[in-house]
Amino acid sequence: MTAMNSPLLDHCPSTLPAQAYFDPAWFEAERARIWAREWVPAGRIDSFPDRTIRRVEIAGASVIVLRDGAELRAYHNVCRHRGAELCAAETEPLRGKLVTCPYHAWAYATDGRLVSTAFGTPTADFRKEDNGLLPVALRLWNGFVFLCLAETPPAFAPDIGIADAALSLAALDNWPMDRLVVGHRLETTIACNWKIFWENYNECLHCPGIHSQLSARVPVYAKGIMSPAESAETAAAPGPVYADGAETWTVSGRPCGPVFDGLTAAERAEGHRFVTTYPGSFVVAHVDYVRAMTLTPISPEETRLKAEWLFLPETLARPDFDLSDVVDFASTVIAEDAAACEMNQRGLRSPAYVSGRLMPQEFDIARFHRWVLERVGNDVPNLKAES
Amino acid sequence: MTAMNSPLLDHCPSTLPAQAYFDPAWFEAERARIWAREWVPAGRIDSFPDRTIRRVEIAGASVIVLRDGAELRAYHNVCRHRGAELCAAETEPLRGKLVTCPYHAWAYATDGRLVSTAFGTPTADFRKEDNGLLPVALRLWNGFVFLCLAETPPAFAPDIGIADAALSLAALDNWPMDRLVVGHRLETTIACNWKIFWENYNECLHCPGIHSQLSARVPVYAKGIMSPAESAETAAAPGPVYADGAETWTVSGRPCGPVFDGLTAAERAEGHRFVTTYPGSFVVAHVDYVRAMTLTPISPEETRLKAEWLFLPETLARPDFDLSDVVDFASTVIAEDAAACEMNQRGLRSPAYVSGRLMPQEFDIARFHRWVLERVGNDVPNLKAES
Amino acid sequence: MTAMNSPLLDHCPSTLPAQAYFDPAWFEAERARIWAREWVPAGRIDSFPDRTIRRVEIAGASVIVLRDGAELRAYHNVCRHRGAELCAAETEPLRGKLVTCPYHAWAYATDGRLVSTAFGTPTADFRKEDNGLLPVALRLWNGFVFLCLAETPPAFAPDIGIADAALSLAALDNWPMDRLVVGHRLETTIACNWKIFWENYNECLHCPGIHSQLSARVPVYAKGIMSPAESAETAAAPGPVYADGAETWTVSGRPCGPVFDGLTAAERAEGHRFVTTYPGSFVVAHVDYVRAMTLTPISPEETRLKAEWLFLPETLARPDFDLSDVVDFASTVIAEDAAACEMNQRGLRSPAYVSGRLMPQEFDIARFHRWVLERVGNDVPNLKAES
Repeated sequence: MTAMNSPLLDHCPSTLPAQAYFDPAWFEAERARIWAREWVPAGRIDSFPDRTIRRVEIAGASVIVLRDGAELRAYHNVCRHRGAELCAAETEPLRGKLVTCPYHAWAYATDGRLVSTAFGTPTADFRKEDNGLLPVALRLWNGFVFLCLAETPPAFAPDIGIADAALSLAALDNWPMDRLVVGHRLETTIACNWKIFWENYNECLHCPGIHSQLSARVPVYAKGIMSPAESAETAAAPGPVYADGAETWTVSGRPCGPVFDGLTAAERAEGHRFVTTYPGSFVVAHVDYVRAMTLTPISPEETRLKAEWLFLPETLARPDFDLSDVVDFASTVIAEDAAACEMNQRGLRSPAYVSGRLMPQEFDIARFHRWVLERVGNDVPNLKAES
Repeated sequence: MTAMNSPLLDHCPSTLPAQAYFDPAWFEAERARIWAREWVPAGRIDSFPDRTIRRVEIAGASVIVLRDGAELRAYHNVCRHRGAELCAAETEPLRGKLVTCPYHAWAYATDGRLVSTAFGTPTADFRKEDNGLLPVALRLWNGFVFLCLAETPPAFAPDIGIADAALSLAALDNWPMDRLVVGHRLETTIACNWKIFWENYNECLHCPGIHSQLSARVPVYAKGIMSPAESAETAAAPGPVYADGAETWTVSGRPCGPVFDGLTAAERAEGHRFVTTYPGSFVVAHVDYVRAMTLTPISPEETRLKAEWLFLPETLARPDFDLSDVVDFASTVIAEDAAACEMNQRGLRSPAYVSGRLMPQEFDIARFHRWVLERVGNDVPNLKAES
Repeated sequence: MTAMNSPLLDHCPSTLPAQAYFDPAWFEAERARIWAREWVPAGRIDSFPDRTIRRVEIAGASVIVLRDGAELRAYHNVCRHRGAELCAAETEPLRGKLVTCPYHAWAYATDGRLVSTAFGTPTADFRKEDNGLLPVALRLWNGFVFLCLAETPPAFAPDIGIADAALSLAALDNWPMDRLVVGHRLETTIACNWKIFWENYNECLHCPGIHSQLSARVPVYAKGIMSPAESAETAAAPGPVYADGAETWTVSGRPCGPVFDGLTAAERAEGHRFVTTYPGSFVVAHVDYVRAMTLTPISPEETRLKAEWLFLPETLARPDFDLSDVVDFASTVIAEDAAACEMNQRGLRSPAYVSGRLMPQEFDIARFHRWVLERVGNDVPNLKAES
């Protein structure tokens, strides 16, 4: 019997059906109902230079993000005339405050209004006001640009595993997020469905077997759990988060630079704070640096993964700054998780595997599964009838 | 208000729906109802040597064209026994006036009759007369071989933008078409749906922005129109077709050899005459040479394009003949159009783009869209229900 | 009129419809109803070393075969927890008599029972006895391991073209099959549907035109038939199986080593005995060696082919053993058949080819077609409605 405040599940629920991880129909449903309806990350604010059009891809859609001074706007990368692509390059200068289609020279203002049809002379039935650029919702959070393709975007809802949304939204308020810059970037494609990545992220039963370095650093991980609350023993006597006096996720255990000023004592003691923004990203904030992870589904069985290490500019500038001490630690964890995810993906293609069972420790996977199912809806593609 | 004889549209119709340009179901419907039912080009008559079997591909079907003296015949490249391919090479000699299957040696006469089943000894229920080669309709026009997979081929109907079919069919009668030979060939695959190619072909709104060399040569093109009739100003005072005394589509503007003998004064003044044979080719006839363009859909988003420059043999033989002066001019136009088509294709994959609007100047696109829809029929795949 | 005991067909039946050879729906139906329900070969018994887990692929399913002493067992290569792959390498040692999942360390006994869920602490609703490894049926026959994915496997039924199943099962009893070892292996992928391979295997009408070396060796093959019984002439006076005193399928015609001891005089005179185990293999037993052929469908139009030449160890050890004299003969036949199969596959993609007609000599193809149709069932994908 688990204690009243234990997060452990009181039964072993089934997982999602196997085909949720490879069936193209599931993938299309998820793209339309999750990726095209939720807020997904598009990059750090400083990757969108002023007076520039930048092309980004979101849920299979090509989007242009314009920056004119402080103002960022996003539109679908398509002309209303006959559907030509407006911006072919990664970035283009914003010439004369107009977005001009390279095909027939239709021109749009930065607020999206159609300004000119060039040599085309529309008749009265054509209303310019109905033929402006197609807008994409945009919001900033802690220096990250998020986009949402939905006409009516949902609330922006980061997740720290507790029910209070306001607390989650404010979780990084004591970190100097807007001042951080990218000091290192790692990109890789892993051969698994995007949900496999999140399942692996949401449990630590695999930590002792898969992550030897990380489990040596974080004693509760070595017990196969994510937090002291999961076990009566560790709940009663939590002990320090890190072994051997380490303070952060670096190979040496030492911070890579000065500890952030504004953190509370509790935040310092925490060592790492994970903030999840389903379906596309999570941030892990340490006392000395922050890591942002972004994932993008490429196909039912391929997911693009991007890791960005964020630092204060003055930390990066220090003569004794040791980048590899920082990035080697999490890079090892990322590589171990990627291999585990691919092993999981290969296995569940077995025609005999219908679905699995979650262990009580996999409560965050259960929560993630509910999050997915609430969005994909009742008409999710069913288990294939046995043929 | 446009004049009574203006070709301009009196409203701005919608384009075809976006998925017409990438949906595999549309592609299959068009292959079955357009490409497999209309006359499509198979090459110049002189590319089919006497006493030879040549393999060509039409609408995804492998076809053999046999030439025995003056007679050309076309058949599906398949044996009636168990479906083996009859001809694996590009060309094969026609041995002993028989087409013999290389698998089990069934032999067919050049008129398609099954002559022998070799070691197979069919019972009485097998009727040789029901098991001949499967014929493909063939016709010659101006030295071009056209094939049609339909059992009942439609009328052969070239198009010069006017309603009189007889005039269109005769449009090249004053050109020495049967004597022309290929002097240069250019082949390329462009990343767009085949209809995008025709839409680009059917309007000149893009000319000022896309074709600088061509617009400098042809003054009406620089105004974004295809002919003087599209504008009251140019209709009233058409002026010469070409700027600076040029006579044809060469870099220098000078003919590449003697002007064709039989042309009328009006035909000479015209400078270029476009004859379209939907869905697979057009010919542009100049006073000194002819260019034939052939397109072949490879997939919903890939189209193979072939350009052939045709000359009188004596023109090619002249010591001062300058091939590059001829081919560089149109090659530039082709490359510019290909880039524009690919830009259009990329853009209309945007999930937010449902369909566009035609400008009044795009009357020939509207006509082409009707031509497509009449053939694809009422049960064209609908817009995808929003999921 | 054929004689009473002639195997020839009394009419010319239609072949399978063309799309049976390339339609993905047919391929999936055959995978589910034939390849996943019948006994398919997994290799020679000696390719499964003791105390080893070996991964094999059957009908698209990854299977592990465990050997612990004399006992072989087979399971699906998937963990019951969340579907991870149990064995990633071709082979792995069987450590401590347990199969342990590399992801979360669930451990299974070699009899399939779930022994441990490691750090996972299942609640009472989780029953270990319901979460063992998923078994795959396994049987040995003449030194070959066969697997069957069906829960209720069918009878194991080799085929020698006669109705008596017991005789077929015993067809190789006089050969020292269990002692034979692989002396040479050839693997290739042929660009055809798997059924095309079997159709080519099941008739000799193609032999005179395709197999010159083989037809020179086997006089009845030169007549386009598989056995003397197919023709009144050869039925009356069969003559020796091989020309010029040859005794086996070697280039020289001479046995590659001592003739097997236990063969009857009739078996010696036969020269080759073909035993077919649909859908995945056949064995041809000669007086001096045996060749085993395995085929695996990769896609509707790709089939993997493996040939293994089996010898007594003492034959292989002889100083005068000439491997090329043995393998060159059948390798030539295999290459000729592969080219013919690919030619057949290319041809039947013709949109005009609906189906073909079998000749009376193709009685074994007709039998194979019935075998397929009995399994694929009444709801086989129909001929595509003409669009």
